[in-house]
Amino acid sequence: MSVSIDKILAGDVQAVSRLIRMIDDNHPAAVMILKQLFPHTGRAVIIGLTGPPGAGKSTLTNQLIRSIRKQQKTVGVLAVDPSSPFTGGAILGDRIRMQEHFNDEGVFIRSMASRGEFGGITSATRGALTVLDAMGKDYILVETVGVGQDEIDIARVANTTVIVLAPGLGDTIQTLKAGILEVGDILVVNKADKPDANVAIAELKAMVALGISTNLGTEDWQPMVVSAIANSSQGISELWSAIETRLAYLSREPSPHYKKRRFYFHKLELVDLVKKQFMENILKDLNQKGRLDDYVNAIIKKEIDPYTASEQILANLSKES
Amino acid sequence: MSVSIDKILAGDVQAVSRLIRMIDDNHPAAVMILKQLFPHTGRAVIIGLTGPPGAGKSTLTNQLIRSIRKQQKTVGVLAVDPSSPFTGGAILGDRIRMQEHFNDEGVFIRSMASRGEFGGITSATRGALTVLDAMGKDYILVETVGVGQDEIDIARVANTTVIVLAPGLGDTIQTLKAGILEVGDILVVNKADKPDANVAIAELKAMVALGISTNLGTEDWQPMVVSAIANSSQGISELWSAIETRLAYLSREPSPHYKKRRFYFHKLELVDLVKKQFMENILKDLNQKGRLDDYVNAIIKKEIDPYTASEQILANLSKES
Repeated sequence: MSVSIDKILAGDVQAVSRLIRMIDDNHPAAVMILKQLFPHTGRAVIIGLTGPPGAGKSTLTNQLIRSIRKQQKTVGVLAVDPSSPFTGGAILGDRIRMQEHFNDEGVFIRSMASRGEFGGITSATRGALTVLDAMGKDYILVETVGVGQDEIDIARVANTTVIVLAPGLGDTIQTLKAGILEVGDILVVNKADKPDANVAIAELKAMVALGISTNLGTEDWQPMVVSAIANSSQGISELWSAIETRLAYLSREPSPHYKKRRFYFHKLELVDLVKKQFMENILKDLNQKGRLDDYVNAIIKKEIDPYTASEQILANLSKES
Repeated sequence: MSVSIDKILAGDVQAVSRLIRMIDDNHPAAVMILKQLFPHTGRAVIIGLTGPPGAGKSTLTNQLIRSIRKQQKTVGVLAVDPSSPFTGGAILGDRIRMQEHFNDEGVFIRSMASRGEFGGITSATRGALTVLDAMGKDYILVETVGVGQDEIDIARVANTTVIVLAPGLGDTIQTLKAGILEVGDILVVNKADKPDANVAIAELKAMVALGISTNLGTEDWQPMVVSAIANSSQGISELWSAIETRLAYLSREPSPHYKKRRFYFHKLELVDLVKKQFMENILKDLNQKGRLDDYVNAIIKKEIDPYTASEQILANLSKES
């Protein structure tokens, strides 16, 4: 199975789909192609959208696609789904809301599954971003669900991260306070016609004013708070204008803060890749020789503790290589 | 800083607190102590509780603590919070609901933060579980928030995993369908007095009957569905009875399915530790020599792609060691 680089660069949808599937399946040939695509990347604007289930991310993503298309720009959408590590099946449920764009050649939508025990979500997503960037999309929207490490990692690869919240989702805002909120460049309170919406907006604005949201601690950008009712297209132009303000900020002569953040992005990407390659190549080898299973059986019999077992495995690896 | 093994085994609360803090801070001495505690583990019943924010996990945990204490059994509670990788601060919000147990010596409650870029949440949580088990707690409740990989990992270390859901949390049940639901041994629909509760219960029961919930694909246990209104203590005895049914199932002569699951648990634990030690020891070394930063700068200048950089780093590691 192979894919032509030229076809990817020309934006051939079939070739791009096949390559993203190869990346998602962790196909060995995918890395070879990604290496060749890398010099052709760096032009797309990457916008991350995240937040808890039920906040209306898909509806908002759909509205942003419309805003981008109105300006004759092209857009790629990656929907990263928390999926089963056992069945591998991604959730396609709310993708249906984006169906109106299926026949538009300027829009490319793909769901990514979260794979395997080796924490492949970020490297697969990064790979897919490389492809959409290289195929020439002007904007890339990356949508994730949740408040976990995956979402923070994806925020790290985006130029601009939009956190979507909605009033009445229980402890949601409380949960977000200490975590993902800090990675948000733009905070949207969706479903702003609901009770308590004003309270949520006021609370977020107060938090921003207090400097609780720190943008990874590496920028001088102050997060913007926007309210919206995505279902009836309200607040979308305000959100788009906030995104444009953010992009204008980024296109200025990069500040030392911004350079630091970009450096940090690439460092994490590299560390993730090293970790992934280590786990895949070296542990696969260990697994094949059956020694990993021998250690597990010894742990179950309490003949060895897992910490010592791990140390022995790493020590043996160094000796052999 | 050190901690006496004997004090931990005797259940000394101060020593236990200090050790868990050391584990959470990734203190090097913690591993030495965990190694010595390992032979004293394996007695506690570990119950995982997870689900989306707002489902009422803390209230339910609080009720389970009461059920356990009524039987004169002791309990340890680990609340694993999605926390900021930047400020490191855990959320203590709903811990307040468990405050009634603060003066009860038979109850030990700790919040764990999720640390660092090397995915330390599971190894720190596993370490804390080892400590609570070794200190002699009869039951350990592990509470996590969310639908991500962390929750699935924690489900893997528990004997019994309770998924807490509530009607009216948007796409929540839909999200759970493809992901965490499969790791649930007991499914609780909390806030059962809310509209749509019956729909949620019927839907879950239908899914269980269809075999969609596969319990990691390694067991013959069919998940139980329980409804509850934790705020007014309704359904708690039904939940406890479901837990007892599950524990009776586990205490039978272990089935091949169960043995397979236990093997898988320990294998994942070992792989996680190998990954963590590799990242900490070897990458720290690389970082100190500054070569990691040189690679990152070359990537930013597009002199090298990240995939090739990662391969070179791993190749150099093998040569040196």
